[in-house]
Amino acid sequence: MAGVHCRLKTNPEKPDLTLVESETPAVAAGVYTQNLVHAAPVALDRQRTPSDRIRAVVINSGNANACTGERGMDDARRMAALAAAVCGAAPEEALVMSTGVIGHFLPMDKIEQGIAAAAVKLGASPRNLESAARGILTTDTVPKIASRVVAVDGREIRVTGFAKGAAMIGPNMATLLGLVLSDALLSPQTAQDALTAAVDDSFNCISVEGHTSTNDTVLLLANGAAGGEPLAGSALAKFQNALGEVCGELARAIPADGEGVTHLVTLDVAGCATKADARKIAKTVAESALVKTAIAGADPNWGRIVSAAGYAGVPLDPDRISLRVNGTLLFDSGAPVDFDAAAVSASIRAQRDVHVDLRFGEGAASIRFWTTDLTAEYVRLNADYHT
Amino acid sequence: MAGVHCRLKTNPEKPDLTLVESETPAVAAGVYTQNLVHAAPVALDRQRTPSDRIRAVVINSGNANACTGERGMDDARRMAALAAAVCGAAPEEALVMSTGVIGHFLPMDKIEQGIAAAAVKLGASPRNLESAARGILTTDTVPKIASRVVAVDGREIRVTGFAKGAAMIGPNMATLLGLVLSDALLSPQTAQDALTAAVDDSFNCISVEGHTSTNDTVLLLANGAAGGEPLAGSALAKFQNALGEVCGELARAIPADGEGVTHLVTLDVAGCATKADARKIAKTVAESALVKTAIAGADPNWGRIVSAAGYAGVPLDPDRISLRVNGTLLFDSGAPVDFDAAAVSASIRAQRDVHVDLRFGEGAASIRFWTTDLTAEYVRLNADYHT
Repeated sequence: MAGVHCRLKTNPEKPDLTLVESETPAVAAGVYTQNLVHAAPVALDRQRTPSDRIRAVVINSGNANACTGERGMDDARRMAALAAAVCGAAPEEALVMSTGVIGHFLPMDKIEQGIAAAAVKLGASPRNLESAARGILTTDTVPKIASRVVAVDGREIRVTGFAKGAAMIGPNMATLLGLVLSDALLSPQTAQDALTAAVDDSFNCISVEGHTSTNDTVLLLANGAAGGEPLAGSALAKFQNALGEVCGELARAIPADGEGVTHLVTLDVAGCATKADARKIAKTVAESALVKTAIAGADPNWGRIVSAAGYAGVPLDPDRISLRVNGTLLFDSGAPVDFDAAAVSASIRAQRDVHVDLRFGEGAASIRFWTTDLTAEYVRLNADYHT
Repeated sequence: MAGVHCRLKTNPEKPDLTLVESETPAVAAGVYTQNLVHAAPVALDRQRTPSDRIRAVVINSGNANACTGERGMDDARRMAALAAAVCGAAPEEALVMSTGVIGHFLPMDKIEQGIAAAAVKLGASPRNLESAARGILTTDTVPKIASRVVAVDGREIRVTGFAKGAAMIGPNMATLLGLVLSDALLSPQTAQDALTAAVDDSFNCISVEGHTSTNDTVLLLANGAAGGEPLAGSALAKFQNALGEVCGELARAIPADGEGVTHLVTLDVAGCATKADARKIAKTVAESALVKTAIAGADPNWGRIVSAAGYAGVPLDPDRISLRVNGTLLFDSGAPVDFDAAAVSASIRAQRDVHVDLRFGEGAASIRFWTTDLTAEYVRLNADYHT
């Protein structure tokens, strides 16, 4: 892999195009934005995954190739074909991702130069991985990389991923992108099932402001270079676990690096009838501007959290709601509790991580969700930037 | 009616309790919060409406009587009974509303003194109306009053309302409250149908940050003092129209007075398959932090608006979306349009009102919705306030 600069971004220090090659055909799976207004690369990859023959992935930052119509589709197809060509693969054996401004056509001359430049820099060193991870960033302040090695039947299987963005928090920049690479041997359907399950508990459990991007994509490439039999049973379980950890680490890194963010909130929602209910409540609480501003102000304002749960659209008994913040009980079975508000406020102020634990009496389903606070700096960044 | 100060608020200049009496039994209808975590006065009024025998409404600000359990229900019942008593009515002939901090018991001694003080100040002058409208305010900067007179069969029917709040924008203050009074003669069911329809197109078409309060209540009292037959047919249509105008004027006044707000956005969504679809899209666009910050920054960022519509959960063809801001076409049938971005930005900056017109190709249903921008001042007000 390699990340290079091809003038999509103005700062020449910042790579803006990443090329990843698998020397042998890889199984590939994808999970995509649910936004009906989706970008050309999303439409293309959706057609091409799951697959058992992907050789290359090319990703650009600085331009989302979204809302660009037929010409955008042609550009995405051409970008994939160029990447495939430099890897000696057939045009349809490549996938493509884009992130950046919406509504502008890709400068295909720059893209072509970038792919050619990346092709001669391909390598497997940690430095290559870092340049690849940097090539997909937009307003992120740090690259996001996670790795696990699992031993399966005496073999080592590696799972390494990188990701960018935070929902759609950047000024006019869009998108969450993630690419997870493994040498595990998987069938296309197993790869798709594994990725869908991992994303469900990671990238689909984060929110900054809840604005679903046009370009969200997470891809898994697994080329089987580790050898052995296709993973199944306990071996597959170990791989799934490592994949889940890599996706979880990358997903948490996104709100943690959100613009203007001063707190990363881990939100546990438990005691729900279904996991879908738990997710709905978590998302509603996570996206309440009043909850987010309270956390920014280190205010243990339980009324905002409990009332947000109440409008999530999930049937629940208000008298069986309990809430803890940073371990302190604030609300117990539907009633306020006497607690040391100054101490809880101090505990929020003291550290970047905040733990909100919301319990219901409807069942046994639960979810862990990550979100951010909402600061004046976020507003400044997103209001003062001009297209 | 009258508004008095009874020490629920610290500032003695600010009335915090409002009493409204109908000299004859009035038909009463109510529309309430959809939040499952709802306050005691909401539960009480829900039991008592629609009705044909309401004589009094008592409203306090400064304390929401929400999340207060059985004692809260007892307090709401007692507050209604005290109001009924000073009006010479039976205990169950009064309704009650509360707004303010969540999770504190009502100071019933102050409430009792306030009701006694209001009883001796009751009157029908414009000054009484203004003190009543002020008695229900929390962080509002201005009272919100609207009035219409309609001629029906040679008689004048009056419709006068007042309201407070803005979704749940105040620091730890909750709630939208509205009270509409009329001398029209209506059956309880007609009153309920009329209010539900009017609220659907007014108070249910506004959003500040989308946080549904525990206390939202809009009541209609109509005592028939104008005389004549119970309204039906064209007479009822005229009344419905006046009621809709009063509710619309009050509803728009709420986001217009939102904390830290610098723009009031009128959002027209048209060309949808159903009105429910149009409402869902309008609400999603209105509550996108990225849309709201763009408007605060006078940035004609159509990508944020169009992509918000795309994740509203409504089936739609992206190639049939068009968007105008302040009359200028920015996005036409799924494709970007060349437009003078500086001129559109200047038009947003030049005035407090912004018009966003979003059209789809799915059908003939439409909705008009009102929302606000999102400023650093809103965040400051809601983060820096402490419970």
